Amino acid sequence: MKIAIFLFDKFTALDVVGPYEVLSRLPDSQIYLVGLDKRDYMDTYGLKIVADYSINDISETDILLIPGGFGIDNLLTNQKVIEWIQKINNSTKWTVSVCSGSLLLAQAGLLDGKNCTTHWRRKEQLKNYPVTIQNERYVQDGKIITSAGVSAGIDMALYLTSKIIGDKGAKMIQLGIEYDPRPPFEYASPD
Amino acid sequence: MKIAIFLFDKFTALDVVGPYEVLSRLPDSQIYLVGLDKRDYMDTYGLKIVADYSINDISETDILLIPGGFGIDNLLTNQKVIEWIQKINNSTKWTVSVCSGSLLLAQAGLLDGKNCTTHWRRKEQLKNYPVTIQNERYVQDGKIITSAGVSAGIDMALYLTSKIIGDKGAKMIQLGIEYDPRPPFEYASPD
Repeated sequence: MKIAIFLFDKFTALDVVGPYEVLSRLPDSQIYLVGLDKRDYMDTYGLKIVADYSINDISETDILLIPGGFGIDNLLTNQKVIEWIQKINNSTKWTVSVCSGSLLLAQAGLLDGKNCTTHWRRKEQLKNYPVTIQNERYVQDGKIITSAGVSAGIDMALYLTSKIIGDKGAKMIQLGIEYDPRPPFEYASPD
Repeated sequence: MKIAIFLFDKFTALDVVGPYEVLSRLPDSQIYLVGLDKRDYMDTYGLKIVADYSINDISETDILLIPGGFGIDNLLTNQKVIEWIQKINNSTKWTVSVCSGSLLLAQAGLLDGKNCTTHWRRKEQLKNYPVTIQNERYVQDGKIITSAGVSAGIDMALYLTSKIIGDKGAKMIQLGIEYDPRPPFEYASPD
């Protein structure tokens, strides 16, 4: 199972590492951190993750993951990135996003006519595309799964894992990362 | 607020990035990724995070975070690391750990006589130290907070945030990372 995770400047670190921590535990998974260039990418607050591959190195994958972050807006007009996403999507079994990463999928036309979601702060922006936005933690439409903001990528990745190796395997990974979340506060809706 | 996060080979990525995503949003926070040497560190499954600082560069901090991972065992006999943790702990307002990171705090003597926790797979190992282990998501004892496995670091960091900037600020960060967790499966206890 080949898994490509796209990195860019000002990505959100947990958008990458939440799903990564789940998907990297899939049997026989190989993870590819991929950037426009092969170099370090810095998130919004200063953490740097290494992209060992450039988009020129990776033309097919089983799973493509697009994280979100403030840097996503700069990519929406980057034709090289858009074309890479369109091309690699032809090879995927699953194309998934976290948070504002869905905007990049939308810009590439991959969400046209589809159900999807994004971070609550990005819903207005996503409405500019021909999509149906749902207020869910993650939304599957065919082979595409989009997630709500940041931490939702963990829930999405566990769901995706269950689709690939079944519920039992996904539950074992949930146990491995001791994912029995107990937020100290009740979640207050943005409304 | 100076926050030092310790990196080592075979750390667990979510142990670092879960709390990082919360703590980096504290007002006026400066994050320092610190390794024994100044270089990239690879987690268990191949993701590399850059340590821009070596332990020689950082001798004091407000918050010290020790993540866990399979690599923790190699550090338990590393006198240079143990001495750095003992020394820097003298300067901290908060010393915290995620998952098996508590073993390193225990080895440094910082948990002697204290209440603490760790990943469920590491509890037997932690019993070798003079500590009282509690079955909680995170345990505060004075300025030390230890967390259960991997994903528990997010809950711990939100709790710590509430101690530093109050509940309202912590709730805003929880909203920012849309932390309204909905695991697709009920958590099955390791028992």
